[in-house]
Parts: sequence; structure tokens; C-alpha cells
Amino acid sequence: MDNYCFPLDEVFLALGDPTRRAIVNRLVFGRASVKELAAPMAMALPSVLKHLRVLERGGLVRSQKIGRTRLCELEPAALRTAEAWMAQQRAMWEAHADRLEAYVEALHTLEQADGP
Amino acid sequence: MDNYCFPLDEVFLALGDPTRRAIVNRLVFGRASVKELAAPMAMALPSVLKHLRVLERGGLVRSQKIGRTRLCELEPAALRTAEAWMAQQRAMWEAHADRLEAYVEALHTLEQADGP
Repeated sequence: MDNYCFPLDEVFLALGDPTRRAIVNRLVFGRASVKELAAPMAMALPSVLKHLRVLERGGLVRSQKIGRTRLCELEPAALRTAEAWMAQQRAMWEAHADRLEAYVEALHTLEQADGP
Repeated sequence: MDNYCFPLDEVFLALGDPTRRAIVNRLVFGRASVKELAAPMAMALPSVLKHLRVLERGGLVRSQKIGRTRLCELEPAALRTAEAWMAQQRAMWEAHADRLEAYVEALHTLEQADGP
């Protein structure tokens, strides 16, 4: 139904959780290890890893293991894809609202012309 | 964790489904009855109503019963809230990327100045 390179289902589902949004919110400032991501969250590493997998499935985060450390990085393209979908809906809604307003105004003018 | 008037969890979870995005995509062109929403979907009315409830919980859609017809309408503010969250993340990511680039460039200039 959608025409985007990122699976919107997975992107939106990944963002529908405060922990995962907090991870995104941390990664916008640059790469971080899983340990660094877990530190402010009072959350066990396996739970953080589970959330990371959901974010990776949505294409929002990519990670790679360097030695014994897993480094995570934001993949901004997925964020842009979801933002573009929303901007598109909003633009269509605004265009429709503008047309509706113009139509109501035109009706009003006609009514006044027909009046006594 | 978030500071928005709409519950981002519910907004994003509501958008994480192709049927619900299709409903939003129809409602950007104006109000529609549940029957009108269901027509192109080859879906039973109760299933459509279930999806509508998820969209209403996310604040994306509001509906009201007029006689025997339930009319649905888009609530663009929730869409704007989610879009704003994403735009904010992207802006922070871009600002960080710009600073990183400036830092690498400064390092490069210093290296050249130190060179033979």
C-alpha cells in the first residue's frame, strides 16, 4: 500500500515505545555502545538489546561488533522516510482544507449575489 | 520521557499498520462514514471499527454518530505532533553531523599546518 524503501510498519512500530525513542534521541548525538545506551535507562543489557533489534528491523539503527563492544549508530534515512509520509498526509489535508474554504467562500459570494 | 500533548506511543503504534495508514490517507481528503472507509478495503465493518478505535486512541481520528451513520474525521494535530518529534530528531542529528564535519576539517587544517 505504501511506496517507500523502508517498511513503514516496522519504522512506526519501533517508534511506538518510549525506551526506543530515548535510544534514537541518544543516537542523534553520535554513535554509542550498548552499554552506554543502557546506562541512563536502569535496564538490563538483554532488554536494551531486544529494543535495539526492533529498531534495527525498522531500519532506524544499525550496529556492528568491534572487538567485545557493539557500537550502535542512527540510520537517518528511515526517520526521513516516516517524516516524509507524515508531511505528505499533512500537505494533502491542508490542500483539501484550503479548497474547502475556497468553496465555502464561493458559496457565500453566490448567496450574497442572489440576496435582496 | 516525551513532552508532547499527544501520546506518541499511541500515535506511532496507530500508524504502524497499513490499513490504519490507508484510513488516514483517505481522511486527508475529508470526512467519511465507516461504510465509506470500509468499501475499498474488502474488510468487515467490525474490523474497520477496531482499527478506528486504535486511531482514535492515538488522537489521529475523531468520530461522531449522526443518526445511524458514524462519521470519521482526521485530527491533524496528532500527525503534526509526531512529525515534529521526527523533525526534531533529524535536526539534532544534522547539527551533530555538521559539527563533526567541522571538527574533522579543523583537525585536517591543524595536521597540514604541522606538516613539513
